[in-house]
Amino acid sequence: MALSTMIHTHLPTTLYGGAVNRISSISAHRRVAVDTKLNRGARRLAESLTSLLHLNIDPPSSRKNLQHSSWDSFDEEKHNTPTTSPKEMIADKWRQLHGCTDWGSLLDPLHPWLRREIVKYGEFAQATYDAFDFDSFSEYCGSCRYNRNRLFEKLGLCKNGYKVTKYIYAMSTIEMPRWLERSRLMDTWSKDSNWMGYVAVSDDEETRRIGRRDIVVAWRGTVAPAEWYEDFQRDLEPIGIGDAKVEHGFLSIYTSKNESTRYNKSSASEQVMEEVMKLVQFYRGQGEEVSLTITGHSLGGALALLNAYEAAVNLPGLPVSVISFGAPRVGNSAFRDELDDLGVKTLRVVAKQDLVPRMPGLVFNESLQRFDDITGTLEWVYTHVGAELRLDVSSSPYLKRGFNPMGFHSLETYLHLVDGFHSAESAFRSDARRDVTLVNKACDMLVDELRIPQGWYQLANKGLVCNEHGRWVKPRREPEDIPSPIGDQAHEHSLRIQMQENYQMLYASYQT
Amino acid sequence: MALSTMIHTHLPTTLYGGAVNRISSISAHRRVAVDTKLNRGARRLAESLTSLLHLNIDPPSSRKNLQHSSWDSFDEEKHNTPTTSPKEMIADKWRQLHGCTDWGSLLDPLHPWLRREIVKYGEFAQATYDAFDFDSFSEYCGSCRYNRNRLFEKLGLCKNGYKVTKYIYAMSTIEMPRWLERSRLMDTWSKDSNWMGYVAVSDDEETRRIGRRDIVVAWRGTVAPAEWYEDFQRDLEPIGIGDAKVEHGFLSIYTSKNESTRYNKSSASEQVMEEVMKLVQFYRGQGEEVSLTITGHSLGGALALLNAYEAAVNLPGLPVSVISFGAPRVGNSAFRDELDDLGVKTLRVVAKQDLVPRMPGLVFNESLQRFDDITGTLEWVYTHVGAELRLDVSSSPYLKRGFNPMGFHSLETYLHLVDGFHSAESAFRSDARRDVTLVNKACDMLVDELRIPQGWYQLANKGLVCNEHGRWVKPRREPEDIPSPIGDQAHEHSLRIQMQENYQMLYASYQT
Repeated sequence: MALSTMIHTHLPTTLYGGAVNRISSISAHRRVAVDTKLNRGARRLAESLTSLLHLNIDPPSSRKNLQHSSWDSFDEEKHNTPTTSPKEMIADKWRQLHGCTDWGSLLDPLHPWLRREIVKYGEFAQATYDAFDFDSFSEYCGSCRYNRNRLFEKLGLCKNGYKVTKYIYAMSTIEMPRWLERSRLMDTWSKDSNWMGYVAVSDDEETRRIGRRDIVVAWRGTVAPAEWYEDFQRDLEPIGIGDAKVEHGFLSIYTSKNESTRYNKSSASEQVMEEVMKLVQFYRGQGEEVSLTITGHSLGGALALLNAYEAAVNLPGLPVSVISFGAPRVGNSAFRDELDDLGVKTLRVVAKQDLVPRMPGLVFNESLQRFDDITGTLEWVYTHVGAELRLDVSSSPYLKRGFNPMGFHSLETYLHLVDGFHSAESAFRSDARRDVTLVNKACDMLVDELRIPQGWYQLANKGLVCNEHGRWVKPRREPEDIPSPIGDQAHEHSLRIQMQENYQMLYASYQT
Repeated sequence: MALSTMIHTHLPTTLYGGAVNRISSISAHRRVAVDTKLNRGARRLAESLTSLLHLNIDPPSSRKNLQHSSWDSFDEEKHNTPTTSPKEMIADKWRQLHGCTDWGSLLDPLHPWLRREIVKYGEFAQATYDAFDFDSFSEYCGSCRYNRNRLFEKLGLCKNGYKVTKYIYAMSTIEMPRWLERSRLMDTWSKDSNWMGYVAVSDDEETRRIGRRDIVVAWRGTVAPAEWYEDFQRDLEPIGIGDAKVEHGFLSIYTSKNESTRYNKSSASEQVMEEVMKLVQFYRGQGEEVSLTITGHSLGGALALLNAYEAAVNLPGLPVSVISFGAPRVGNSAFRDELDDLGVKTLRVVAKQDLVPRMPGLVFNESLQRFDDITGTLEWVYTHVGAELRLDVSSSPYLKRGFNPMGFHSLETYLHLVDGFHSAESAFRSDARRDVTLVNKACDMLVDELRIPQGWYQLANKGLVCNEHGRWVKPRREPEDIPSPIGDQAHEHSLRIQMQENYQMLYASYQT
C-alpha cells in the first residue's frame, strides 16, 4: 500500500479535503466502509504521524481550466534562458567549499559557489537513477544502460568536467526483498548484483577551476523503506574497532561478496576503495592536491557515509567529504564521533517534508511516547552526523503543496530546492536557472500552470523499435554497453602505464 | 465509475480471484514477526512506507525467473518474418467479402481473404487511438496529432492502400462525463469537440485489387463504460420515421452541433454524410463501382451503426457494411429490422470475454435476477444486429488467462485474435503473422515469456525535447498538424476541379 493510500485510508476525510489525486474520488463510499472498520489505534497512529510530520495537506488545484497568467511569460522567458551561468574560479576557496570548517558561514545564506557544487554532486547521484535499467524483462535489468565512457555524454553531464573511471557493483548476503532489481529471465548479466554507483575524477580544466584533483564516488539509492523500518532499525553492527555501530542492512550492501558471483567476487567496499586508493596514489604521485567527495541520495547517502568512514581510515590526510540528499540515519553516536575524529565532513541536504531522513527511527526516535505498546523493542540509537542544509518544499512557487511522499523525497525535487535556496528566511531565488521541468522526471510535483506531464522521463515505446520487417522488437544492447566484470581492464592498463611513466619522470627528476 | 471498479464492486470475488492486485505478496514471513510487536496500525504504516522509495515500478506478479523454452526460438523466428503475406486479388469476390450474403459461409472457418479485410478495417479503427492526443496539458488535447495527409504515413498504414480525405469532429449536447478528452488550458484548439474519426478512400491500386472503389469511415471509440452503464441504458430515442429507436447518448454524439463552436457548426453526422455523398457522387461519376465500409471499436462501433443507417437511407443502392469490434448494443429490434430492410450488412467481431458487447444491458438483460431492486426501471430492449465473428481470448497461446477487462476489450487484442482465428473448433493459427507485440501497446495481455513490456506505446519523454539551451520543453506542433476547421478547403477545391473535369469529359463524350 502506497503511503498516500495509507493516509487516505487512515485519516479522517477532513484532513485531506479535496484529495490528492483523481483516483481517490472513485469510490468514496468504499473508503467510508473501510474507515468504519479501522481500529482506533491505527487512526491514532496516522493522526499522530500527521502532526508529527507537520504535514500541511492542501487540497490540490482542481481540474478547472488554467488561467492565462504570468506563467505564460515565464514559459517564453525561461525556455530561452541557458540553464547554467558561466563557472566561477573557486580554486582559492576549495577547502572551505569542501567543508574543512564544516561549511559554517556558507550555508545560510548559501554561498553561490557552494550551491553550484552541491548541485554538481547531486547531478552525479541523479545519474545513477537516470541510467539504471529497471526493465525486469531485460537481461540487463539492474545494470547501467551505458558503459562508463558514455555515461556522462548520454546524460548531458560532460559539462561538469569529470570522467568516470570505474563502475561499482553491490550485492547483499542478508535477504532484503525489494532491494535488488532483478531480471525475470534465466540468462541475465548477473543474478546477484546491481550496478550501485561509480567513481569519477575531475578533468584537468575542472581541476584548475576547483583547485584540486577531485575524486567523486556517487552511490545509487534504490531501496524500499520497509526494510529500513522493519529490519534496519533493530540490528546495529560494529564498524571499525571502537564502539561505532551502523545499521546492518546498509553494511551488508556495502561489504557483501561471493566468490561464485561475476560482479561481486569483491565487495562494493573493496571495489570502490581499490579504485580510490589507486587514483589517490596516482595523482599524489603527480604532485597534485587530491580530495574525495562522496555523494548519494536516500540509501545512496547511507552508503556514502560508510564509504567515507572507510576512506578516512585508510587514506589519512585525504580531505573526505560527503554530500548526501534525503539520506536516513546510519549509525550510533559513537559512529558519528569517530567520523568527526577522522575529519570526515558531511553535508546533509534535507527537505523538511521528506520522511526518509527521519528513518530509521521515524516513529521510534521522534514520537516514542505516543506508541507505548512498542517501546520495549527499541533504543534511541540512530544519530545524524555533520552539517545540515535544510530545504522547504513550500519555498518554491513551482511545486505543488499536496502531501506527496514520493515527490518530497525525489532527488530532482532536492536539486530544484537547492537551486532556489538563498537563505532560510528569504524567498525562492528569482534568478534560479536550473530547468524546473526536471522536477517531474519521475514524480508529480510541479504546479499545473507549468503544464509539465508527471513522470515524463521515459523511453520511446519502452525501448521497443520497429525492425525492417515491421515488427516491434527490443534491440540488442550495444556490445560496449553490456556490463562485463573484466570491462575495466583497459582502463586499468592505461592507468598502470601512466603510473609507470609518472614514476619514470619522478625518477628522472631525482637523477638530474 | 470505471468499468473495472464496477466489476469489482458487483461481481463475486471468485470471478477475479488471483488477478488484479500484485502488491500483497512481498514479505509474508517478516510481517508475521513484526505482528507480535506492533499493533495493527503500526503494521499498516510499515506496509505503507514500503512504497515510499520505489522510484519506478511495482513488482510484477510472479517474480520468478522465466525458463528457457520454445519461446526463445519463437523470438528469433518471428522477428525475422514479415508481418504480411503478399496480397491476394479479391476483386471477383468483393461482394461476398463485403457481406452481400451476410458472410454466411465465410466465417467458420474464416476465409483468409476475409480475415485480411477484417484486420485492415480494424487497423483503420486502431489509427483513431494511436494518433489521438490524450495529453490534457496540450492545447491540442482531443485532436489528432497529425494532419490527414500524414496520418497513415505516421502510423505505418500506407501499405493498406487508402488515402484519408476528411477528419470528423464530434461533440455532445447532453452531458456525458468522461466522454470528451479536454485540455486543461484556457486557449485550446476546441473546447467542445474531439477528433472522432475520418473518411478515407482506396487508391487506384487497392481499388483494382478489391474490385471497387471503397470508401471507409473509421470511428474512434473512447468512452468510459460507466456512461453506458449509468446513462446510456435507459433512454432510447427514435431514429428515422418508424419504430426504430437508438440509445440517446450515442445519437447525441453523432448528431450534436452548435453554431458557436469551431469544429461542430455541423454535426459529425453532417460532416461524414457530406463527405461520403461527395465521394460517392464523384466516383460514380467516373463510372466506378463504389462501396461504403464503416468501422469502429467500442463506442466507435455504435457510431458506425448509426452512420450506416443514415448512409443507407440517403444513398440507395450503395453497398453499406459495418465491421465493428467490441461494440455495445445500440438500439431496439425495430432498429435492427430497419437496418436489415435497408440492406446494411453488419459483421460484429466480439470476444467472448469482453464485457462491452453486453452493454447496455450487461446487468439488465443478462443478470436481471441479481439486481432485483432496479428491475422497475428497465426494459429488455437492446438488440444486437447482423452477423457475429466470435473470438475467444483463451484460444491464443500468447495471451494471459487472468481476468483483465481492459485487455479483453482492447482493439489490439481483437486484431490479434482475428489474425489467429481459423474456426471455432480449431487452434490458433500457427502461421499467423501479425506482430504479437502490438497486443501490449496499451494493456498487459501478453504472457511473460514474450518479454514484452505492458502498455509500451508511448512517446519518448512524453513528447518533451531538450532545446538548445538544455531545457526540456514541449515543442510546438508542426503548423500543418494544427487542427483547422477550414483545413480541408484545399482538398475540397481539388475535388471540385476533378469533378468539373469529369463532367467536361462526360459532356465531351456525349457530344461525340
